Amino acid sequence: MTRVMICGDLVWAHKECEELLNGIAEVVRMDSSDRADFLTSLQPGGKYEGITGLYRHNVSTDRIGVFDKEIIDGLAATGVKWIAHNGAGYDQIDVLYCKEKGIFVSNTPGAVDDATATTALYLLISALRCFSRAERSVRAGAWKTTHSAGEAHDLTGHTIAILGLGGIGLRLAEFVHAFPMRVIYHNRHKVAHVPDWCEYYGADRLDEMLAEADVLSVHVPLRDDTVHLVDEAMIRKLKPGAVIVNTARGKVIDEAAMIRALEDGHLSAVGLDVYPDEPQVNPRLFDFKNATLLPHMGTETCDSQKKMEIRALSNLRDYLTKGKGSDIIPEFR
Amino acid sequence: MTRVMICGDLVWAHKECEELLNGIAEVVRMDSSDRADFLTSLQPGGKYEGITGLYRHNVSTDRIGVFDKEIIDGLAATGVKWIAHNGAGYDQIDVLYCKEKGIFVSNTPGAVDDATATTALYLLISALRCFSRAERSVRAGAWKTTHSAGEAHDLTGHTIAILGLGGIGLRLAEFVHAFPMRVIYHNRHKVAHVPDWCEYYGADRLDEMLAEADVLSVHVPLRDDTVHLVDEAMIRKLKPGAVIVNTARGKVIDEAAMIRALEDGHLSAVGLDVYPDEPQVNPRLFDFKNATLLPHMGTETCDSQKKMEIRALSNLRDYLTKGKGSDIIPEFR
Repeated sequence: MTRVMICGDLVWAHKECEELLNGIAEVVRMDSSDRADFLTSLQPGGKYEGITGLYRHNVSTDRIGVFDKEIIDGLAATGVKWIAHNGAGYDQIDVLYCKEKGIFVSNTPGAVDDATATTALYLLISALRCFSRAERSVRAGAWKTTHSAGEAHDLTGHTIAILGLGGIGLRLAEFVHAFPMRVIYHNRHKVAHVPDWCEYYGADRLDEMLAEADVLSVHVPLRDDTVHLVDEAMIRKLKPGAVIVNTARGKVIDEAAMIRALEDGHLSAVGLDVYPDEPQVNPRLFDFKNATLLPHMGTETCDSQKKMEIRALSNLRDYLTKGKGSDIIPEFR
Repeated sequence: MTRVMICGDLVWAHKECEELLNGIAEVVRMDSSDRADFLTSLQPGGKYEGITGLYRHNVSTDRIGVFDKEIIDGLAATGVKWIAHNGAGYDQIDVLYCKEKGIFVSNTPGAVDDATATTALYLLISALRCFSRAERSVRAGAWKTTHSAGEAHDLTGHTIAILGLGGIGLRLAEFVHAFPMRVIYHNRHKVAHVPDWCEYYGADRLDEMLAEADVLSVHVPLRDDTVHLVDEAMIRKLKPGAVIVNTARGKVIDEAAMIRALEDGHLSAVGLDVYPDEPQVNPRLFDFKNATLLPHMGTETCDSQKKMEIRALSNLRDYLTKGKGSDIIPEFR
């Protein structure tokens, strides 16, 4: 029987895993404690020999590292054709090399939208309203004596610029439209089938968008061409007192440039769920009174994690039964 | 010319104050440093003599105390007929005694809805997602090692019970409908002109509502009959693991009963903006990992405070020019 591997945590969807793969594939669990054992076990006679697809979660990185050329060569050699990654971002997989080796990759885009956009909404409220600072104040016994209403703003009537209107960005747009905030966005291309109140700004009007934004919320994936996409120049084109929210990936923002803008007050606040070198957080960020800092909580709920596990497993099952999972990543389309 | 008084902070709407009252009334500012001076100044020959209406903000309490019988007697004696209170809650004014003395009272209901409902939304997200705790964890250098996704939930698909569907409750309902959450509510009477998806539970079905709620959000004003409305019995009728959010007034909840329910895990989290004895906060609350605690930030934004000042001043102007401000409180209707 076809063999597949569960590589990294499967926590919430054990029953669904059985239902989805029962009678279709034998399931092997990755139990290597290090990369060397993993690579050996992929070889002829090894316990992972002959797997044709795998479910992958980023927690596997703790033991075997990211999916770089060495890992991918090992997977290709034993016959893997599909990596069903659990997560929206797949920057821990060298997908271009996968393509070269004939291995397809899927992610779980829709399943993360709701929880990640909720995280962005929370950071947005906290940043505009100074709530994180207020809670630190009350817990320090200072009630709201450190608060000045002049620094705090309602969401309603203000403008949010969404950088990358994919599933997460669009979900956030729906949330803030309830206030309403004005929603403007930039993408490489105008997005079809979005509500009229999402106003598109192309590359030729990017500066204009930045100048109109009270808040810039970042929702682009991390790729070679998005590293430091939000750089000194882009940050300085935001209006003075603007706010940045990031629930995408830390490296999409030039952190040093962002910190300079917080230091000189060009940015009034930031709300961050992601950092360039997680789980390390630049301690300089702790000094800014208007920084709200979460430890990559974007999809950290049992509801969303179960959805993501099922979605990743469904992609693996569909590869086995139909030859293709529906969430194949854009690089392969 | 008619005289009116500004009693307490007017910060954001100086220009609007002039525009609204120019040519209609002489504006006197309350500058007494204590109650005795205030009462003396209301008497014949005093600097406040002959005022017929006043704008009032709770910050005046710091100097002259709440508007009790003594203050109201003084105001009535000099001829005050209208108190234009700045705020939704007017529990610092003995309105029934005002009624007896022929003084009308208005508040600023609509102006606070947006900012207060946003505060409730923030507390709701934080409580369900464990975000306040997560931020304390990252700031303590522990990243998210204290987090367990099993304790965190998406808003989407869960049920919120709104206790008191006035302007603030309805605004919150609109926000969470974007996810969507299921919205159920209890009021003394079914509210007309609300969307169908707000499901009414009358007094006869209150227990049923509590049993279905993942979150109870409190939005009733503080009155004699709402003190400890959310008591031990009501809290215990919530499902195990439920969450309470309070942006109304601290005394509406029996705090000791709520703390017992946090201690034994019947409540999984609370999000509080208000406390029974502000600015004091029961330090026991600081011990619960899933408590999000704000220092009464409900309307602490320049945008909303300006709206509230203008609304209160408009009520005062309308009393002077039309005999009645539009936000006269329910006790007088």
